[in-house]
Amino acid sequence: MSDIPLPQGFRSAGMHCGVKKDPSIFDLALFVSDFPCSSAGVFTTNLVHGAPVKVSRERVRRETTRAVVMNSGNSNACTGDRGIEDARWMTGLAASQIGCAADDVLVCSTGVIGRFLPREPLETGIKAVATKLAATPAAFEAAARGIMTTDTVPKQSTRTVELDGVTVRISGCAKGAAMIAPNMATMLAVVMTDATLTPLQADGMLRHAVDRSFNCISVEGHMSTSDTVLLLANGAAAGRGQSKPLSDAAKKQFQAALDEVTAELALGIIRDAEGATHDITLDVTGLRTRDEAFRIAKAIADSPLVKTAIAGADPNWGRIVSAAGYAGVKLAEENISLKVNGMLLYERGVPLAFDASAASASIKNNRATHVELMLNLGQESVRFWTCDLTAEYVRLNADYTT
Amino acid sequence: MSDIPLPQGFRSAGMHCGVKKDPSIFDLALFVSDFPCSSAGVFTTNLVHGAPVKVSRERVRRETTRAVVMNSGNSNACTGDRGIEDARWMTGLAASQIGCAADDVLVCSTGVIGRFLPREPLETGIKAVATKLAATPAAFEAAARGIMTTDTVPKQSTRTVELDGVTVRISGCAKGAAMIAPNMATMLAVVMTDATLTPLQADGMLRHAVDRSFNCISVEGHMSTSDTVLLLANGAAAGRGQSKPLSDAAKKQFQAALDEVTAELALGIIRDAEGATHDITLDVTGLRTRDEAFRIAKAIADSPLVKTAIAGADPNWGRIVSAAGYAGVKLAEENISLKVNGMLLYERGVPLAFDASAASASIKNNRATHVELMLNLGQESVRFWTCDLTAEYVRLNADYTT
Repeated sequence: MSDIPLPQGFRSAGMHCGVKKDPSIFDLALFVSDFPCSSAGVFTTNLVHGAPVKVSRERVRRETTRAVVMNSGNSNACTGDRGIEDARWMTGLAASQIGCAADDVLVCSTGVIGRFLPREPLETGIKAVATKLAATPAAFEAAARGIMTTDTVPKQSTRTVELDGVTVRISGCAKGAAMIAPNMATMLAVVMTDATLTPLQADGMLRHAVDRSFNCISVEGHMSTSDTVLLLANGAAAGRGQSKPLSDAAKKQFQAALDEVTAELALGIIRDAEGATHDITLDVTGLRTRDEAFRIAKAIADSPLVKTAIAGADPNWGRIVSAAGYAGVKLAEENISLKVNGMLLYERGVPLAFDASAASASIKNNRATHVELMLNLGQESVRFWTCDLTAEYVRLNADYTT
Repeated sequence: MSDIPLPQGFRSAGMHCGVKKDPSIFDLALFVSDFPCSSAGVFTTNLVHGAPVKVSRERVRRETTRAVVMNSGNSNACTGDRGIEDARWMTGLAASQIGCAADDVLVCSTGVIGRFLPREPLETGIKAVATKLAATPAAFEAAARGIMTTDTVPKQSTRTVELDGVTVRISGCAKGAAMIAPNMATMLAVVMTDATLTPLQADGMLRHAVDRSFNCISVEGHMSTSDTVLLLANGAAAGRGQSKPLSDAAKKQFQAALDEVTAELALGIIRDAEGATHDITLDVTGLRTRDEAFRIAKAIADSPLVKTAIAGADPNWGRIVSAAGYAGVKLAEENISLKVNGMLLYERGVPLAFDASAASASIKNNRATHVELMLNLGQESVRFWTCDLTAEYVRLNADYTT
């Protein structure tokens, strides 16, 4: 049982309502602030996206947000106009339990695509989950469990920082990109804080944090229709009516703490990726821009050939270098060097003699694999996280929706 | 044993020389024209590419090409300056056997990346293979075997067309993108014809054919460092000294026949893809440009989530539609319709009720799966071929190079 607390003025709850068949598995979560929040959201860029994404996207960057209602087991994506009605209906029902406007409730759904939401269990469930709201770590963990699909553990993270003399807390939870039929890939996260932020500040800080966390992970490169990261800031830390704008120093401190929370949640997703036996940290350095480093990291992270080699503890480094070559970034072989787990295998375009058995053993005997690709073209770099690709992943994802 | 003939004036041979350990497996091929050829080549766009790609790219679009020497078991990629010297040395040795300039010999290598070519077996081998050159179907098949890596069958194709009253033959062979350590992914093909083409014509026609065949297949989306498709045209069909430029009608006939040969070779690669249990034909229709249709088809073909669903006979169609959504093409859900094996599952943004068991059975009971995604935005379309992703693929690719 986690003991991660919520920030002041927040309550949450999670339970099983019946979107999923197994009554022992949670499928509903509610996060509520007792005070109006500045809200921000970062959403999937997939042009095919779920109805909850369409509805929530219109309702962030406001100062009146009060809650997020989330279900797992059905993503309410590719469901047309009826899907949008269903998503709005969920927020209206949650709003009437809390006593706020439907517009002040955000909504996320994760699960299989292309099926209409079952209203009956959700109606009973949303009414019931509102009666369970509590400010306890147990209630927060229950909510974190309510959004899980194939995750094996709930992912939560918290930081406490002193901002301009006020103790502020940031707490978030996330579900992973691990996938198995009947559930579709999705990454969802909610981060709550009792710091005082304007919607514009919340938006800018959330984007900064997401660019260095959730946007730097890849399980298999299939972008979900439902990816959503939300930030709610209710200003309750300073006491009601006492909140003041953050100083510049405090903004920096807050950003750093927020970055840590989102990075911890993102890493939690990689560590719990379906079927994975290795967590891979990719450091791509020496590019002209961060975007170039990012594109190379993503090409490597998305290559099934790189991922299967690491699953097999195979130091077949040509697969890594060749993936960099098709990332769409201007580069030259003679500048490229590569280290795997600290061992230099390729230096400025020339293959080095190395102890292949030792390299293989170092991959095999460690869950963490560290890949450093040095392009030697500039000063920009990126750190990216991914996982290996195993037969177990294929087995899990070849199961029937039927 | 195949009975595919070579065009007039061509000879070929294949054998084991010792780049690979197992003496029963071929690893060397030589294709020779008795007369100078117009040559054209299409090469990998990977910025990390093998030394043979660098060398051959400089030698195509000429009128004096005489031969192609190819080895499997070592790609001579990521091998720096020494790799380029090795590739040139191979062409020089082949040229001295044939009696031509080194510049008139093209070279391809496929296999593991980052190891220097073993000159000793290649020196003995290239001298020996030149003595085996023959114009027989058996010699052509031996050459097709000499370029195989994890392919289980050689891939050959031929067409005969009457052009301006002259009977012309086009014959080609290819090796697949199937991958297994210690061999790296690569697609290589050589197409020979006794038609009369200028280097510019050969280049244009080869690009047209490759765009509709080898560029429309994907096994797992990892672009090789060595992909090469070569066309040699020696004009021998009309008799020595009798060759004339093709008429416009003949050019069209030749293009159609060449397109058929390359498509047959490309399909052969998909049918022999490693671990695959389904061949998938993707028809993406109704786009504003062919490039848009291509990008959507490639996003679908490269999605491990789509590929594992088909491996599991899972009609989880949301995975297909959602892959289209992140292809970088402007589209709207409400225009999209989807058929799988002829069954309409999603129509203009609305999920349809369908018999999931019947849909699953139709995938399960057929090696061929047909996916039709209709965007309803324009008149352009593309046909793309891919295969499913199985646990066997992962098992094969997680093996050691060590």
